[in-house]
Amino acid sequence: MSILVVGSVAFDDVTSPSGSVKNILGGAATYFALAASYFTQVRVVAVVGADFGPEQEGVFQKHGIDTRGIERADGKTFRWGGSYTDNLNEAKTDYTDLNVFESFHPQIPKEYEDTDFLFLANIQPTLQTNVRRKMNSVRLTGCDTMNYWIKGSRAELTETLKLVDVLLINDTETKMLANESNLPRAAHKVLAMGPQALVIKHGEYGATIFFREGAFGIGHHPFRAPALPIEEVKDPTGAGDSFAGGFMGYLASQKELSREVLKRALFYGGVMGSFAVERFGTERLQSLTREKIEERFQVFRELTHLE
Amino acid sequence: MSILVVGSVAFDDVTSPSGSVKNILGGAATYFALAASYFTQVRVVAVVGADFGPEQEGVFQKHGIDTRGIERADGKTFRWGGSYTDNLNEAKTDYTDLNVFESFHPQIPKEYEDTDFLFLANIQPTLQTNVRRKMNSVRLTGCDTMNYWIKGSRAELTETLKLVDVLLINDTETKMLANESNLPRAAHKVLAMGPQALVIKHGEYGATIFFREGAFGIGHHPFRAPALPIEEVKDPTGAGDSFAGGFMGYLASQKELSREVLKRALFYGGVMGSFAVERFGTERLQSLTREKIEERFQVFRELTHLE
Repeated sequence: MSILVVGSVAFDDVTSPSGSVKNILGGAATYFALAASYFTQVRVVAVVGADFGPEQEGVFQKHGIDTRGIERADGKTFRWGGSYTDNLNEAKTDYTDLNVFESFHPQIPKEYEDTDFLFLANIQPTLQTNVRRKMNSVRLTGCDTMNYWIKGSRAELTETLKLVDVLLINDTETKMLANESNLPRAAHKVLAMGPQALVIKHGEYGATIFFREGAFGIGHHPFRAPALPIEEVKDPTGAGDSFAGGFMGYLASQKELSREVLKRALFYGGVMGSFAVERFGTERLQSLTREKIEERFQVFRELTHLE
Repeated sequence: MSILVVGSVAFDDVTSPSGSVKNILGGAATYFALAASYFTQVRVVAVVGADFGPEQEGVFQKHGIDTRGIERADGKTFRWGGSYTDNLNEAKTDYTDLNVFESFHPQIPKEYEDTDFLFLANIQPTLQTNVRRKMNSVRLTGCDTMNYWIKGSRAELTETLKLVDVLLINDTETKMLANESNLPRAAHKVLAMGPQALVIKHGEYGATIFFREGAFGIGHHPFRAPALPIEEVKDPTGAGDSFAGGFMGYLASQKELSREVLKRALFYGGVMGSFAVERFGTERLQSLTREKIEERFQVFRELTHLE
């Protein structure tokens, strides 16, 4: 089934202990779309400027991603510069030039209205709400957010969360959103705000999915997927979006949302996140095959599997 | 088979967000021994003072733990006071009164010399080395240490590590010991210092075991056990020692050290650690049954198990 992602497409400058790159294709929607493209048909709603050319367009097209929803605006594409030191879990933002992204008002092309799955990448919550309201036929909506909106736009975010099926955020964001330092208690508070399920991304420790009682008719015991201990983390940018792409993309490729399917989706999320960080930018995500993805899936499975 | 733990027996004062307790039985050897006692025959070498009476002795005896190696010295038992705030992962030490522990020179009773498994809890590395050298018949030696020795007694600790089969430490200690911020790379550096296997405890995220190539003849792919997301953490004191007790105790109960046995041991470690934190001190560890342990083992297994 098809999946639509609404979010940023960007140019990034990234510095990490492994080196420096400039002007590479980035943005949450880009990472998400590439990761999900290995599982299902992907559509993108985003905005870019005149500097977004055939080279960038070609990256999406090579993966069969539908780019009719990428609006071309006058001006420059969103640009972000970030640096990582030894602690690869946290980026220091060197600069953020919103450019055309500043006045982004997502327009859903008519051809996208029948989309089955929707992912609201990390943008202003009211924009997320507006997109969700326009997509009446959607079966499942995933959503990301960040500290900036949790602190600064709580009321708007609260409205968004009422319309969301699965929220995907990290430990710190979960605790901040719930105002609760114990993670499982925080998870239950967040679930009470609307989502059927909450995926908490723990970085190198994997991810846990918590369910509301009765969610998807599958029982409410949490499930945890490990992450692969990775020796060579070149660039953590986009790991969370790639996780979301693997998770949502796999869900969209399945006939039903059983507990087993959601568990596997969590593993595929971890797999795609682990690939993303191995090279700068989207390089690794661009060069995968479904076979390589399955191989790593088995490695992840083996990592915690008891006979 | 039998297992010997050498380490501290103490009285603790603990404050956490869940309350305050005074003068409770604590110490690494105590937590370890109680956790391991559900799996195998446990022997203890430690030192206590005149304030260690029949009540404390009874806790060990009720669990069939052999206390002939607990030396009674003139003076007071080791006392530790610690507090936890919202971040339950780190204790603030309020005071440490070493008392009789200050001049602890572990004596191995003659009856203990045939012990099959040895666990060197967190004490001064040269004492650990001396104990290990006295135990010639031992099949497998586990070892714990801490930042204090890694920083202050590196040369002595390096000698200890050459005599150790499995080192059990946490993420921060691993990185500090290896002087390397990437966890898998740090793990390989630590393994090059001597141990066949390294168990890294990640707190609420579980634990990972890394192997030297050829270790125990079982291949060298790492294995990760999850931890249970716990809503009510009353007192994290002793979680790591209880983990070690479950891990080593289960190993000691098995005929051979296959990969599957080591994997299961890692799960039992997590299980015992998760029980320990549910009540203050050793309360929960004192009241378990093997049946309750097996039940939680299944919950842990389910937490990451794919069909």
